[in-house]
Amino acid sequence: MDEGKNIVHSDVVTAATKDALIRRGVKIQDIAKIVYELQVPYNKGLSLEQCIDSVESVLRKRELQHAILVGVELDEMAERGQLSQPLQQIVESDEGLFGVDETIALGAVYTYGSIAVTTFGHLDKNKVGIINELDTKKGIGIHTFLDDLVASVAACAASRIAHRTRDLQEAGLTFKDVQNGKGS
Amino acid sequence: MDEGKNIVHSDVVTAATKDALIRRGVKIQDIAKIVYELQVPYNKGLSLEQCIDSVESVLRKRELQHAILVGVELDEMAERGQLSQPLQQIVESDEGLFGVDETIALGAVYTYGSIAVTTFGHLDKNKVGIINELDTKKGIGIHTFLDDLVASVAACAASRIAHRTRDLQEAGLTFKDVQNGKGS
Amino acid sequence: MDEGKNIVHSDVVTAATKDALIRRGVKIQDIAKIVYELQVPYNKGLSLEQCIDSVESVLRKRELQHAILVGVELDEMAERGQLSQPLQQIVESDEGLFGVDETIALGAVYTYGSIAVTTFGHLDKNKVGIINELDTKKGIGIHTFLDDLVASVAACAASRIAHRTRDLQEAGLTFKDVQNGKGS
Amino acid sequence: MDEGKNIVHSDVVTAATKDALIRRGVKIQDIAKIVYELQVPYNKGLSLEQCIDSVESVLRKRELQHAILVGVELDEMAERGQLSQPLQQIVESDEGLFGVDETIALGAVYTYGSIAVTTFGHLDKNKVGIINELDTKKGIGIHTFLDDLVASVAACAASRIAHRTRDLQEAGLTFKDVQNGKGS
Repeated sequence: MDEGKNIVHSDVVTAATKDALIRRGVKIQDIAKIVYELQVPYNKGLSLEQCIDSVESVLRKRELQHAILVGVELDEMAERGQLSQPLQQIVESDEGLFGVDETIALGAVYTYGSIAVTTFGHLDKNKVGIINELDTKKGIGIHTFLDDLVASVAACAASRIAHRTRDLQEAGLTFKDVQNGKGS
Repeated sequence: MDEGKNIVHSDVVTAATKDALIRRGVKIQDIAKIVYELQVPYNKGLSLEQCIDSVESVLRKRELQHAILVGVELDEMAERGQLSQPLQQIVESDEGLFGVDETIALGAVYTYGSIAVTTFGHLDKNKVGIINELDTKKGIGIHTFLDDLVASVAACAASRIAHRTRDLQEAGLTFKDVQNGKGS
Repeated sequence: MDEGKNIVHSDVVTAATKDALIRRGVKIQDIAKIVYELQVPYNKGLSLEQCIDSVESVLRKRELQHAILVGVELDEMAERGQLSQPLQQIVESDEGLFGVDETIALGAVYTYGSIAVTTFGHLDKNKVGIINELDTKKGIGIHTFLDDLVASVAACAASRIAHRTRDLQEAGLTFKDVQNGKGS
Repeated sequence: MDEGKNIVHSDVVTAATKDALIRRGVKIQDIAKIVYELQVPYNKGLSLEQCIDSVESVLRKRELQHAILVGVELDEMAERGQLSQPLQQIVESDEGLFGVDETIALGAVYTYGSIAVTTFGHLDKNKVGIINELDTKKGIGIHTFLDDLVASVAACAASRIAHRTRDLQEAGLTFKDVQNGKGS
C-alpha cells in the first residue's frame, strides 16, 4: 500500500470506467431506468433524476470501477478473438456453467449488503431493459461480463436508495422532499 | 477440531434438520416442486422424483443443516416472544433492511456456486410456491428466516441439477436415461 | 419496505448494539487497538483516536448492527442453556465445522470490500488482542459468535482506513494532517 | 444451458487448468505442502500424498478451473503489456486496493464453506510457501491473480480435508486408516 507515485489516480479510473460503459453501449440513464422500476413501488416521490444520482454515486466506488474495467476488457478481448483457448470459446458462447462473470459482478454487489445480492440475482435471471438488450444482441458483440456488471450497478444503486429511504423516513421525509439532494 | 467425544454426531444434526422443516410446515416435496419448475426448461426428461433426490442430497450438507437449525431457532424464539428488544421487533416485523436472514441463507447457497446465488436472489424476490405461503401466512406465525432458508435449499438443489445435467450431456445422457440414478 | 410506524428507529438499534458489546465485555478501544496494529505499518501518522473513530463509524452501519444483535443473542441464549438441542451443544462447544458464526460476521465484512474479507480471515485464524481473550475465556462464558463479530468490526474499520489512506494520498495528505478529521 | 455441441468438454477445461498452473511455475505438490501444514495439527496420520489427492480433487471443480483460466489469462496479458490502460498499470503494480484478484479467487473458495473463506484470508495475508515465492518474484513476472488463486486452491483443499476428517472420526477412523482412500 505504500506504493507511492506509481499508482493510478482515482480520477483516471473513474473516467476509464465511464468510457468503458459508453464504448460498450450502456448509458447511465439506461441503468437508472432499471433502478427506478425496482424502487418506485417503495418510494412514491422518487424521480428518475434521483436514480441517475444514485447510479453515479455507485460508479465512484473502487470495487465497482475495477470490476467494470476487468469485465469489459475480457468481453472486448473475446470479441477480437484474443483470449487463449478454451477460455475464448467459453466466454464467446456465454456458457451457462461459467460463473466468473457473476463472481466479478457479485464482488461489487456485496458492498451494498444483502438486499443488493438478492436484487442482483433477480436482475440476472429476469433480464430487464438494457440488460436484456445486451443479452440478446449477442450476434453483434460479446457481453458475457457486461450484462452482469450492469445488473450489479443497478442492484447497488437500488440498495443505496432503499437504505436512504429509511434514513429519510426516520427524519420524517420522503424522496420528494429532497428533490435536489444528492445524498451521501 | 480435535474436539473429541463432545461433538454432535452428523446423524443427529441431519435428523434435527428434517424435524425442524416438518415442524415448521415445509415438506421436501414442496421444495422439490420449486426445483422442478426452475430446471425442467433445461432438462426435458427431469422428474419430480429426481428433484426430491437433489433436495435430500443438499439437506445432508453441514452448511445447510446448520443454517436451518439457527434460522428456525430464531423464528421460533420470535414467535414465543423470547428474543430481547429491539431484535424481537425487527424479526417479528420481518423488516426490509434486516439482512441477517438472507446472510445466513446465502452462506449455504455459496457452496453451490454462482448459479445458486442468482437463483436464490430470483426466488427471494419472486416468491413462488411454499416460499410465498410462508411469507403471506405471517398472521399465523413468524417465518422471517425460514422463507430465505427454503429459497436457499431450492437454489442449491437446482444448481446441483444444472451441474449434473452438464455431466450427463458430456456422457451423451439425459436425466431421463438415469431415471433411477441418485447422483453423487 | 413501506412498513410504517412499526419499525424500530435506527437510534434504538445503534444504542442496543453498543450495549450488547459492553455487556459482553468488549470495549471500542479494544477493537481500535487491533485496527491500529493492522494499519499503522501503512500509515505513519495514524493515531489510536482515528482508529476509534473508524470503529465507531463502522458500528453505525445497519449490516454490522444487525449481525451483532443476532450473534450476541445466540451467545447469551447458549449461556443460559436456552437453545434447543442439538444447536445448544454445537454452539456451546464452538464446533470447528459450525460456520454460521463466520457466515453472520462475513455478511457485514463483505460491505467493506475484498480487503476486509482477507483481513477478517487473518484475524479469525490468528486471534489477536480481545479476540483471543474472548476465545480463551471459554470457561467463563460462551462467545462462539462474538469473537467472529469483533474480528468483523476490526476488519471493516481497517478496510475503511485503507481506503481513506488512498484518498488522502491522492490529495497529498496523510492521517497526521487530518488529526481532527472524522471522515465519512 | 441447452447449448448443445458448441460447449467445451470438461476434460479440455481440466487439462487447460493443469497446463496453466505448470506454465506459471506452480506444481500441485507446492500447493499440497501448504495444505499439509494447515491440516496436520488436526490430523495426526495425514500424509502429503493425501493432500495431493485433495488438491487434485479440488482442481476438478468447474468454479476453480474457470477462476484459474481467467486469472492466469489476465496475468499473462499484463506480462505482455496487452491490457488497456489504466488496467495494465493497476495489474502490473498489484495495487493494494485492487480487489478483483481476491474476488475471483473467493468465488471458488465459497464453494468449500466458511472454513475455506477464513483459511483463504489467512493465506492471503501471511503468504507461505509457493504463494510467497509468487509474490516476491515480481521482478520476473506478474502474478497478481495467481497468488490469490493458489491460496484459493490450498484453502479449498484444506477445508475438504477438515470436513473429511470429521466424517472419518464419526466412523471411528483417521486419515492413517484410509491411507489409500481417494475420497469423494
